[in-house]
Amino acid sequence: MDKSPEALAQAVLGRIFIELEASARHVHLTEAQAQALFGHGLTQDRPLSQPGQFLARERVDLVGPKGTICRVAVLGPARKEAQVEISVTDGRLLGIRPPVRQSGDVAGTPGILLSSSRERIAIREGVIAARRHVHLTPETAERFHVTDGQTVQLQTFTQRPAIFQDVVVRVSRDFADRAHLDLDEANACGMEPGDLGRILS
Amino acid sequence: MDKSPEALAQAVLGRIFIELEASARHVHLTEAQAQALFGHGLTQDRPLSQPGQFLARERVDLVGPKGTICRVAVLGPARKEAQVEISVTDGRLLGIRPPVRQSGDVAGTPGILLSSSRERIAIREGVIAARRHVHLTPETAERFHVTDGQTVQLQTFTQRPAIFQDVVVRVSRDFADRAHLDLDEANACGMEPGDLGRILS
Repeated sequence: MDKSPEALAQAVLGRIFIELEASARHVHLTEAQAQALFGHGLTQDRPLSQPGQFLARERVDLVGPKGTICRVAVLGPARKEAQVEISVTDGRLLGIRPPVRQSGDVAGTPGILLSSSRERIAIREGVIAARRHVHLTPETAERFHVTDGQTVQLQTFTQRPAIFQDVVVRVSRDFADRAHLDLDEANACGMEPGDLGRILS
Repeated sequence: MDKSPEALAQAVLGRIFIELEASARHVHLTEAQAQALFGHGLTQDRPLSQPGQFLARERVDLVGPKGTICRVAVLGPARKEAQVEISVTDGRLLGIRPPVRQSGDVAGTPGILLSSSRERIAIREGVIAARRHVHLTPETAERFHVTDGQTVQLQTFTQRPAIFQDVVVRVSRDFADRAHLDLDEANACGMEPGDLGRILS
């Protein structure tokens, strides 16, 4: 075990706070969609904070009825279903009203056109504004006395402090402890990288 | 006094809640700047919720180091100093980091270029992200037990509920009771027109 003063300080902070992370707009693709759009599967640019997840080198344009957002991040690995996570602000530009949904819960959500230099793919559903959520390991969830699926409040220690309500807790061995806000929420609370939050259950 | 059921319901709601309003990006100009940009003073398009304030027919482009936002709303009447109120999201597009300030407190803030078809004016300071605030009449302030300049928490009864902290109270006979959030904040809490909030002091 790393017993440097920094590691100890981190361990103490982790008992009280959770690191905040902003999710900028991004797209999840199926393997077949990646093949069609890029001529190959997704390739890794850099790993993300959640173990196994990565930012891909590949990018797509989102084409909505009112506007286009170019070169949007694609996250890997490929999934069983496409999903497009945007902010309400993005939605206004595209001309789409994204419903607030948990990742994977895309039934009945709006579709969109995904475009690369090689191909255009219309998806029939999958555009959402991601519901605020906290990723926790089982150990951290136990320490914070919360369980998978529970909703909590998240207090942000940020320039424009706020308490976000109705934040869903997700617990898995595969997670790293992080609170995820979308860009509207991150900007609304004046979040900077490294800022911390606190779960109020 | 209007004693219709609707007016009574409004009066009861007003004892507990406050109407939320989103402030989209906008510009305040001096009389001289309006004359230079448009060749005449500001003319009214429609009145705003705050008595005496109006949305002007005239619009300006905001030209930042990284991007331009076209046809931005100008609010009247003219002021002693120019002020440009944008969101952090807007700031990213323009290439300007707006500090969070109360209206009128613009010393040391970034400048920007204001552009019309007729003239371009560089202002040396005045670009801010408006600090969350609540406008109250003296009567409402007394009823809510808050005073001018006090900071409170504002709970929003919106699709994505939140409690905004560090909300400044402004009290004046010239005000209508309204809580003002910027567009990042309004989108972060899923605000729709007519939504209500509650002051937690």
